[in-house]
Amino acid sequence: MKLATIRIGDGTRAVRVEGSRYAELDAPDVGGLLAREDWRTAAEAAEADRPLADVDYAPLVPRPGKILCVGLNYRNHILEMGRELPQYPTLFAKFPEALVGPYDPVVLPPESTAVDWEAELAIVIGRTVRRADAAEAEAAIAGFSVLNDVTARDWQYRTPQWLQGKTFEATTPFGPFLVTPDELPGGTSPALTLTCSVDGEAMQKADTGDLVFGPVELVRYASTILTLNPGDVIATGTPGGVGHARKPPRYLTDGSRLVTEIDHLGRLENTARTELG
Amino acid sequence: MKLATIRIGDGTRAVRVEGSRYAELDAPDVGGLLAREDWRTAAEAAEADRPLADVDYAPLVPRPGKILCVGLNYRNHILEMGRELPQYPTLFAKFPEALVGPYDPVVLPPESTAVDWEAELAIVIGRTVRRADAAEAEAAIAGFSVLNDVTARDWQYRTPQWLQGKTFEATTPFGPFLVTPDELPGGTSPALTLTCSVDGEAMQKADTGDLVFGPVELVRYASTILTLNPGDVIATGTPGGVGHARKPPRYLTDGSRLVTEIDHLGRLENTARTELG
Repeated sequence: MKLATIRIGDGTRAVRVEGSRYAELDAPDVGGLLAREDWRTAAEAAEADRPLADVDYAPLVPRPGKILCVGLNYRNHILEMGRELPQYPTLFAKFPEALVGPYDPVVLPPESTAVDWEAELAIVIGRTVRRADAAEAEAAIAGFSVLNDVTARDWQYRTPQWLQGKTFEATTPFGPFLVTPDELPGGTSPALTLTCSVDGEAMQKADTGDLVFGPVELVRYASTILTLNPGDVIATGTPGGVGHARKPPRYLTDGSRLVTEIDHLGRLENTARTELG
Repeated sequence: MKLATIRIGDGTRAVRVEGSRYAELDAPDVGGLLAREDWRTAAEAAEADRPLADVDYAPLVPRPGKILCVGLNYRNHILEMGRELPQYPTLFAKFPEALVGPYDPVVLPPESTAVDWEAELAIVIGRTVRRADAAEAEAAIAGFSVLNDVTARDWQYRTPQWLQGKTFEATTPFGPFLVTPDELPGGTSPALTLTCSVDGEAMQKADTGDLVFGPVELVRYASTILTLNPGDVIATGTPGGVGHARKPPRYLTDGSRLVTEIDHLGRLENTARTELG
């Protein structure tokens, strides 16, 4: 099953997508839908009777209760940098104000000169869970989506804590779809090709099966700390190929075309636009 | 003016406190109240006709849209540790699941053996603001409260990012009151004595006027990054005297009595309770 949040009139609506058509669901967005215990059956029951053409996609979950992000988490990338595999996942936060839709502009704040890309597989939580074991963690995963953890590197490294470079307003595209694990090779441990390009040039390419801490383990670990709720998001980390690590470094500039794709999940297409400060 | 959120029946209610009485306000909590443009006049107009005795206080804002926390921010403490004053505030996040009321138990997770105290002055936002100048930042401060940024040190230092030690469920007391700046010495740059004791022994004592980045500057800085909304919270950092820095280190244990107080603002009184995992 494939879900999305679309913009209609002054608001948004959760929809189920089926081929070239969609069904409107009785929830303002995918976050609200997942908060219903019957979300799966309700979404399946609705008839996909509307054409998908020209739909305007909002961020998949416009206001997650929390967005957890994971630091270094791709095995090959860590090993090629000569580091040891970490014992624990590095977690940091992003606030919902950072999110934009899958085809919206990514806003470059005039206060930064180093806005970079980080293509990521995103987990969306579908069930309230705390101190989950592996089976409960797996059951708490509603599905997966695509997120680009766009980062202002200069602000990220101003202080020891990354948050301020990670949560600039309207920088983080998220969507277009939530795809349930039953439709994915690998299920809740999906083995999918993730790519990121800038102006048509390939920058990142990885297999989401190469994560050090996979989706089930991340949900289990995070739920040790606090309750995860429907609509919460975990961005699982990015592989090598970010602009900051290039020689010379390369960043997004006004007009840059950022394409982030994971097979079976879909594609974000965003143009970077410098905001007037 | 003094506001609080109290528990009634199955829910909560925003109230204005006046001496030994309170007025019920037309909002489920202080966050909901502050989202109303007329919050100040609405709160002032309500008659304080109920006795305050035996009121059960919820977290001042039970579900802030965001909780920003500030790292090293007390001048004397930084200088006494031989460090230089920072150029930028260190920001990190806490999620609302961490909050408890001002007299609730602080829950010690069985997964940590190093839960520590951090008494802090908290700013509560009362107006939507982005890229505020100093005057706009000042006007966006609804008032101040007391928060103890209780921290699992072992989890804080597992990885380079502190978040996982900062946001354990039900660890962070917040309240009991929001006091508006007009009632405080120093107004929006309040010069107040902050103290923290454990089992009656004084642990922390500082003057909130000693902040490197004061409340107005913190609101201005954070609003450069993203929109601040009514009910958002900024915890301004803790002074010296935390248990982790003591020789030998000292942490909260089952039954520890944690008292956090800022004059003119009020006092948190919490008993630490080990949770069964």
